[in-house]
Amino acid sequence: MAKHLVIMAGGIGSRFWPMSTPQHPKQFIDITGCGRTMIQQSFDRFDGIIDIEHVWVVTSANYKALVQEQLTGINPQHILLEPCMRNTAPCVAYVSWKIQKEDPDALIVVAPSDHLVLNVPSFQQYIMQGFAFVAGGNRILTLGMTPTRPETGYGYIEQGELQEGGVYKLNSFREKPNLPTAIEYLQKGGFTWNSGMFMWSVDTIVGELRQYAPQIAGVMDQMVDTFFTEGEQLKVNELFPTCEKISIDYAVMEKTQVAYVMPAEFGWSDLGTWGSLHTLTKHDESQNAVIGDGVTLIEAEGNMIKVPSGKKIVIQGLKNCIVAEHNNTLLICQLSEEQRIKDWHD
Amino acid sequence: MAKHLVIMAGGIGSRFWPMSTPQHPKQFIDITGCGRTMIQQSFDRFDGIIDIEHVWVVTSANYKALVQEQLTGINPQHILLEPCMRNTAPCVAYVSWKIQKEDPDALIVVAPSDHLVLNVPSFQQYIMQGFAFVAGGNRILTLGMTPTRPETGYGYIEQGELQEGGVYKLNSFREKPNLPTAIEYLQKGGFTWNSGMFMWSVDTIVGELRQYAPQIAGVMDQMVDTFFTEGEQLKVNELFPTCEKISIDYAVMEKTQVAYVMPAEFGWSDLGTWGSLHTLTKHDESQNAVIGDGVTLIEAEGNMIKVPSGKKIVIQGLKNCIVAEHNNTLLICQLSEEQRIKDWHD
Repeated sequence: MAKHLVIMAGGIGSRFWPMSTPQHPKQFIDITGCGRTMIQQSFDRFDGIIDIEHVWVVTSANYKALVQEQLTGINPQHILLEPCMRNTAPCVAYVSWKIQKEDPDALIVVAPSDHLVLNVPSFQQYIMQGFAFVAGGNRILTLGMTPTRPETGYGYIEQGELQEGGVYKLNSFREKPNLPTAIEYLQKGGFTWNSGMFMWSVDTIVGELRQYAPQIAGVMDQMVDTFFTEGEQLKVNELFPTCEKISIDYAVMEKTQVAYVMPAEFGWSDLGTWGSLHTLTKHDESQNAVIGDGVTLIEAEGNMIKVPSGKKIVIQGLKNCIVAEHNNTLLICQLSEEQRIKDWHD
Repeated sequence: MAKHLVIMAGGIGSRFWPMSTPQHPKQFIDITGCGRTMIQQSFDRFDGIIDIEHVWVVTSANYKALVQEQLTGINPQHILLEPCMRNTAPCVAYVSWKIQKEDPDALIVVAPSDHLVLNVPSFQQYIMQGFAFVAGGNRILTLGMTPTRPETGYGYIEQGELQEGGVYKLNSFREKPNLPTAIEYLQKGGFTWNSGMFMWSVDTIVGELRQYAPQIAGVMDQMVDTFFTEGEQLKVNELFPTCEKISIDYAVMEKTQVAYVMPAEFGWSDLGTWGSLHTLTKHDESQNAVIGDGVTLIEAEGNMIKVPSGKKIVIQGLKNCIVAEHNNTLLICQLSEEQRIKDWHD
């Protein structure tokens, strides 16, 4: 059974403006300054596990060129273009129906394109364990990140009974908690962060979608004959928008009887906001995180600063703010207000 | 007696960084966005009063090209290049000795190159009055700005007895006061701001310099034979640096028996700092002064923002700060700390 990778790359990263824009969202940017964009890193970390001919990307039609440019060598047939955003369930369905047509025995890992993983060797061990687990039967596996702080920005997964090989039955999904609840989860134990990474056989996910998301499955059945033909995109453009707009968590994970969670720890962050970048980036003694080589700080504390290389900046007296410049656009705002960033730009 | 204008343009404007840099200081910048630089405005406002062949500029050798570029039509012999900054007394002496050689009957107005005047017709009336006054005898006249607020950033001049035509005997110079003292000056009356604008006949100022600044006068006497010859700059470069470093206020104004002050009001500001620009620029209802066409403000109060045209900026939650960008250099600091700006750059 061949192992396939599905990279979900349709997001617009609106909370990471101005670095991330709808024309060029964060998965296509080298946010951490390491020399590789987020989607390239998402691809790189499966090196040695997944053959490039088994890599799939689901993205928006707008980002086709960016994907081709940044992930050279991917089969163009494996770049799936959503004509519109219908959340993750239709997206997972589309790629699953298509993979099934090419390789009915496929094992699949679904991974976001814009998350950060610091410990790649450890990540790969978990992925190999996960493949072994889902190869063993009709199982849907999600990777749960062992929490390191009472984070209120993530959803949580409650574990049930321990199964084989460090995997638990998945008891329930919990929405982003408030701080007391998050603290309670940590103290109680048995809770992990929902990473949005899933593993399954193509057989399993198609079956579960047929059972719990029959409307979406019906649309897929109408389209599947065109897959890998010239008529595919036209048909997808016509019918994909008729799919129910729903996440894979709601559509399948919360209903299925075969959900499992594998707690894992490999230096993960969803890198969803400037604040998460601030948490992950090296701080100076005043809790400033700086990406950029021309920044002078005076009486500045707790700021997240990301500016182009070579740009000279002096900042005095600023506290707990974001200062971000990209494409001749500058944002200065309070870190505490970062959830509102998406309202401030077009 | 012909009227001459001396524009003092040697300052480096270090408190207006990053807009003003030692390579391109504020007098050569269009700070207010009106289409003319500060030195051009300083020249323009004498239009109709002073013939261009009677305009003189004293500046640093570094700024020769900037002066020639921005004040086209000035006699190159009238652009005096100081090899180093020796404060205003040697500067006034140099240009006075040189004017005397060309026109021994000259009447002179000395004006800074980086001040703002909002009401030019009114300004011209005061200048004409001043020329009439200094033409009438051995008199040194300074223009005192009628104070409109208890400003602590300017020096003050105390008036003595009223003379003819709205002119007073000059009683004393007062250093920049603290706030209670500034309030006292306003309540008491008879105090004006020291504008750094002077008027005199060339005869008078040369005579006063000989009496009260004999060291500087001696250096001038050693150099004067070379003025208007090819050897001038070489001699100036050699001897000018040997002049005592002292302001014209200390060297002459505080000692002379013939000092007068004419209180005047023509919308003046020395535009010395970002704060003075903030005071002068139109405010929104939250006391933000914005120069730049792409700025969006959210919960921002009391800021001075000056950014390049076309630059898109979103600022949220910032209070009483300067945000200034120029030449790919960005400054963000508290307005209250603006006097420290000069310490933060090279």
